[in-house]
Formats: sequence, structure tokens, C-alpha cells
Amino acid sequence: MYKLAKRATMAQNSELAAMFKMLEEPGIISFSGGFPDPKWYLDEVKQIEAEIMANKKDEALSYGPTPGLTPFREFLAERLCGEGIATKLENIMITHGSLQGLDLVCRIFLDEGDHVIIESPTYIGAILTIQPYGVNFVGIPVDDDGMQVEALEETMSELAKKGITPKFIYTIPSFQNPTGTMMSLARRRDLVRVAQRYGVPIVEDHAYGELKFEGELLPTLAELGGIENVIHLGTLSKIFSPGVRLGWLVAHPSIIEKAVYFKQGMDQCSNSMGQLLALEYGRRGLIEKQIAVTRSALKEKASVTLENLQKLMPEGTSFTVPQGGFYTWVSVPGDFDSVKALGRAVKEFKVAYVAGPSFYHDRRGPNQMRICFSLPDPEIIPEGIRRLAAAVKAWES
Amino acid sequence: MYKLAKRATMAQNSELAAMFKMLEEPGIISFSGGFPDPKWYLDEVKQIEAEIMANKKDEALSYGPTPGLTPFREFLAERLCGEGIATKLENIMITHGSLQGLDLVCRIFLDEGDHVIIESPTYIGAILTIQPYGVNFVGIPVDDDGMQVEALEETMSELAKKGITPKFIYTIPSFQNPTGTMMSLARRRDLVRVAQRYGVPIVEDHAYGELKFEGELLPTLAELGGIENVIHLGTLSKIFSPGVRLGWLVAHPSIIEKAVYFKQGMDQCSNSMGQLLALEYGRRGLIEKQIAVTRSALKEKASVTLENLQKLMPEGTSFTVPQGGFYTWVSVPGDFDSVKALGRAVKEFKVAYVAGPSFYHDRRGPNQMRICFSLPDPEIIPEGIRRLAAAVKAWES
Repeated sequence: MYKLAKRATMAQNSELAAMFKMLEEPGIISFSGGFPDPKWYLDEVKQIEAEIMANKKDEALSYGPTPGLTPFREFLAERLCGEGIATKLENIMITHGSLQGLDLVCRIFLDEGDHVIIESPTYIGAILTIQPYGVNFVGIPVDDDGMQVEALEETMSELAKKGITPKFIYTIPSFQNPTGTMMSLARRRDLVRVAQRYGVPIVEDHAYGELKFEGELLPTLAELGGIENVIHLGTLSKIFSPGVRLGWLVAHPSIIEKAVYFKQGMDQCSNSMGQLLALEYGRRGLIEKQIAVTRSALKEKASVTLENLQKLMPEGTSFTVPQGGFYTWVSVPGDFDSVKALGRAVKEFKVAYVAGPSFYHDRRGPNQMRICFSLPDPEIIPEGIRRLAAAVKAWES
Repeated sequence: MYKLAKRATMAQNSELAAMFKMLEEPGIISFSGGFPDPKWYLDEVKQIEAEIMANKKDEALSYGPTPGLTPFREFLAERLCGEGIATKLENIMITHGSLQGLDLVCRIFLDEGDHVIIESPTYIGAILTIQPYGVNFVGIPVDDDGMQVEALEETMSELAKKGITPKFIYTIPSFQNPTGTMMSLARRRDLVRVAQRYGVPIVEDHAYGELKFEGELLPTLAELGGIENVIHLGTLSKIFSPGVRLGWLVAHPSIIEKAVYFKQGMDQCSNSMGQLLALEYGRRGLIEKQIAVTRSALKEKASVTLENLQKLMPEGTSFTVPQGGFYTWVSVPGDFDSVKALGRAVKEFKVAYVAGPSFYHDRRGPNQMRICFSLPDPEIIPEGIRRLAAAVKAWES
């Protein structure tokens, strides 16, 4: 075996890969991967694709510019302005999903030994993206109002005493992955204030931000703090299609310039067909239409999920009550070990979840698990939760 | 401005971005970007896309597994076996273009301060990919028979005396970018022998490998050395479509496993629609059909280009005579500076090339340039070379 990099000797096959495997198990009801329900994809996509093939085949099959196709960037910039984020063309680039946006941020900011603030728990993908840069994670706890900004402020103060300035604060303020919680407006304002006071940029992951079940959205951190202080990551994965692998990075032009430079060495450009398709889907108002369909479907699925968790899980189980997004975060009492119980849950009880420790950089939370309600039909969810409860009880017995 | 990573403070906007800009200059004849001619895309793609939308819309729009869609990997593995590279499913993963394959190799192998062997000159994208890892480049000169493996052997011996084992040898053996040269069979065998003797893996970039103008291909390094010693990078960018952004990495399963781990943190998976499209395009024999179309078109374009370079360029100009691929490498006598002359060539003479120093990690070769003949029509090439010669002469005068 040839000599590998230090980061590769530490790499282990993670839960993300396992999630895909689990879905192949016959008859399984999956609450694992954060997949949109294919029923939400609108049929109009077929007609648009036919038009692209008829009129823009050559563009769809050719290289595009590294920052993304200009009309697509313009469309997204305008849409972001409508959300209150003052975005010009020079502030936005297209990425290969929001994860590549985070990877670009890492390339721009992280040297080995740096400190990065994350929520604890946080998105597995973010841990996987940041970890190879050889940094120190600093986890800030999350409660029903999102990241505990008071705890952040204390941590920042302690780090400052040691002369440490973290390179950035990564947060998913709306319908957080994995907890499903929503950062309150007061905390959003506090977070921006604390970050600015300590001179640390915020990286806002907005993947689920538009998927509130009902009612008005809270302002984004990018709106509150300005894009010179808040790098905003968006994606089509939850509001149109994850298969097109398209996201965007919104930031100050000096950051976009560096990100474009690094993307040239990562993959040169994002896929052109997906950009043309998404642009036309968006222009025809279909992203908004799909969001409406998605919100209402999620509302129903969440409601059925929570109701059945309440009814069927062992006494003492607690779970978050999301106002949007894909997830609820379940804590089981006693010595339940979500990592060890997963294999049997899948094989014997035919139900899948993601184990809590996957979402902690320090592998805490053995008695926790993420339940994703986006994929199963509402009719099947009660049976899924029944199986989940049975799997948990089987551990207890 | 927030504090950036060391690698970001060194990043400068490169020639790749400039290339795209140049193509927007009205009336320009471009010998710059390595773009396939959209005329080579076969019309059957429309029908296939319509069938995918009709029958596999949900799969096309959804996440796929990180290593790639299994039937697509199976198809490619079988195709690679046909090329003499013994590839099983466990040996292949899908990447976002071959550049992501190289980036994955870097993540697996490179620590800061490591040494990497490259050809000198080499592909700009490879320099951009490898550089952020903070390594020392060791350039091996290229002549008409490809990398000078004798020089490599001397270099390896010198490095070994200093206790240095380079992490890998990156090479484009067939129709090299930028020189267009072909590594001879003797040198291929020598390269494999030298690499094995010093315990260094080879990374073979096969982007142009199938685009010989006519006649039989030489065996790949992966065939000669085995995929336990040679990591093989392929791409659809030059044989089907660069816009789908799909490539593959072929290696020992232990390397694939690490690469899949890291891809989870880079972008999770490659786009599904492109994979379904390419799979069906391939299954119907259309990749082979497009390769045949491409080879014969390249043969004509190369011939017209070389003939006109011979006829029109200043005396003392030399250039390589490729047997395949997209490029010829031109050296101009005297004090010509290809970097400084480029702006005027584009603005005043309406012709674009890529300046020589872009292809050297140490920015040598001011009097050299890469001429890419893949994009312009054969009818327009003579006028393009006339402009190029005028731009070069304008510098001289």
C-alpha cells in the first residue's frame, strides 16, 4: 500500500454511504436520508427538457463558465433580492450542491489547526466536508430556538483569551439538520452581533430555509448581517431536484473571486443541462409552485410523524417539534444505543433512521436519532413509527 | 477582510477564467479552450433524453449513490475491460469530471510539503488542482515521445538520496495537454518500471486517450502496470459531452473506498440525469460513433492547422505534430512573450491561444503557446493561423 495523506488514514466509511445501502433493503420504511419525495417534482420538467434539447442542445452539452451560466446567476440573484438578500451578479456563483459551496469556503479560510464553530449536533455532510482540512471543531449546543448564542458568546470570549479567532461559524438557522429547530429572530440578531464583535464570518446554510410548513419566514442571517459578513449557501436539492446537483454561494466579490479560482481546480464548472433546466423551471414559477406543494406535504408528514412518535414511542422519549424542513430529533431514555441498534432495526424491523452520534464531531448522543419524514407516504408513516418503536423497545428488553 | 487560508492568499485568477472571457470577444477565432466541437454531439441525445424524462424522471431528478449509479459504473467497467484495463465494479467510481478524480487523489495522498511529479509543461487544471495542497512540484520535461522517463529516473534517484518519495506521478501519456505528444510504448514500460522501483503510484489522465486520428491505440499505463499501481482517470468531456461533467476514477478498491468517503464531503454524488443520459448514449453505441466522428474531424483540423502554421508562422517557429487529441505546442523564436502578447492578439488581431507559462508550475516558456484546433471549423482555421502569425509578427516588429 502506498503512503497516504494523514487525512486519509483517518477517513472511515461514513453513515452517508450506509444510508444509501439501507434504502436497498427490501420492504424497508426509511426515515434516514434527507431525500425530497419524487412526487413533488412537477411534470412540467419534461416539457422544459424537451425544449432545451430542441433549442439549446449544444449549450446543454458544452462547458459553461466556472462561476455558472450568467442568466442562471442573474435569475438567482434576483430571487435572493426578493428574499431580502442584496445580491448582485458579482456576489453569486453556482456550486455543485451547497456542499461544494462549503468545501469552497473551507479552501478559502482553513489552514491546518484552525478552529471552526459548528452547531452540535450538525449536518453530517458539513462534518465530512470540514474535517479533512485538519481543523479543531468547536461545538455549540442547539435547543428549540436553534444555536445557543449565549453559549457561543462565552466560547468566543474564552477562545479570545487564548488568542484564538475561529475562521468561521457554520450554522443552519432554519429547520436545522438534524434537529429541525428554527433559530429565533432574537438569536439571529445576537449571532450577527457576536460574530461581528469577534471578527468572524458566518456561513449560513439555507438548504431548508424556504420549507416552513406555513406562515412567514424569518429574515436570513445574510439579510440581517449583510453578505460582507455572512456567506450564504443555497441549493436546489430540497426545492427542485437533488439530482441536478446545483447550489449557490453568495458572498462578497473578493470571496467569490477566490471561490471561482478554487472551483477551477475542483471541477471547472457545474453541469450545463441542469443549469438550463433549473433556470427555465424557475422562470416559469415552478420552483415556487413546487415549494408550495412541498410545504403542504411536509406539514402533513410531520404531523403524522409527531403524532405517532407521541403515541408509540416508549415513555420518556422526547422529540423536537419542527415548523418546517425534513427532520425531527428524537431522544430515547435509558441506555439505548442508536448506533448499535441500527443494524437490527434495518434487518429485523425493516425501519431506518440515522444514529445520533453521526451528527456530532465528537460522536456524542448515543440515545438520539434523526427521523426524516420527507420521503415516506403519510399512509405508511404510522407503520414506520410502529416499527421504530418496536426496534427501540427490543433494545430495552 | 477576514483572515484567509494560506493557500487562498496565493490564489490568483488564472488563465482558465480568462479563456472563457475571450470567447465572448466578438468575431474572435479561438484556439484557446480545449472544447469539443458541438457539431460532434449526436442528435440521438434528444430522443434518449425524452425517454429518460418519460420513464426515469424521478431517478434523473433524485440523489444517486456517492460512487455513481451502479448500471453506469458497470457499463464503464465493461468498456474499460474492453480497453485492456481489468476493471470490476469495486474498482470504479463516478466523478464530477476527471478533475474531481484528480482532486480526490490529492485528498487521499497529499500532505503539505509532499512532492508530486508532473510533466513540464502539463494541464493547467492539474496545476490548479494540486497546488492548493501546498506541495512541491517536480517537473519532468516532455519531448516528442512524451515524458522523458530517463530524466524521471535520474530525478527519482536524486530525491531518494535526500530521503524523499514523491506521493504520485501525474501524467497524460496520450495526446498530452498541452503538447499533443504521445508517450512511446518503450517509455510507458519504463515509466511503470521506474514507478514500481521507487514505490510511487502513477496517476494516468486518459482524457484524450481514445482520440487518435487513425490507427491502433497504445496500451494504457493502467493496462501495463495494473490498477493496483496506476490510478486511471477518464472523462466523457472529450468523447461525449463536457456539459454533463462526468468522469471516472479507476483504482484499487482501498483507494476507491477513500475516494468515496471524501466525495461525500465534496458534493455527495454526481448528477443523476447526466449519468442516465451517458449510460444510454453508451449502450446504444453512440459514444463509439461520436469518437469516430471526432477522430476524423480532428484529423482534418489538425492537418489544416499544421499546414498553415508551417506556411504562415515566422521562420524558426517549431510545433509538435500530434497523432491525436486537441493540441499542438508552438515555440516561437526570439523574445516573443506569449503572456504579454495575448491581450493584443485578442483585441487587435481577434485570435486567442493559451500562453505557454500557464502550463508550467514555475511559469517558464514565455515563447511558447498552446494551439487548440478542436473548436474552429477547418474552413476558418487558415484565417485564424494568419491572424496568429500577424499577432506574433506584430510583437517582433
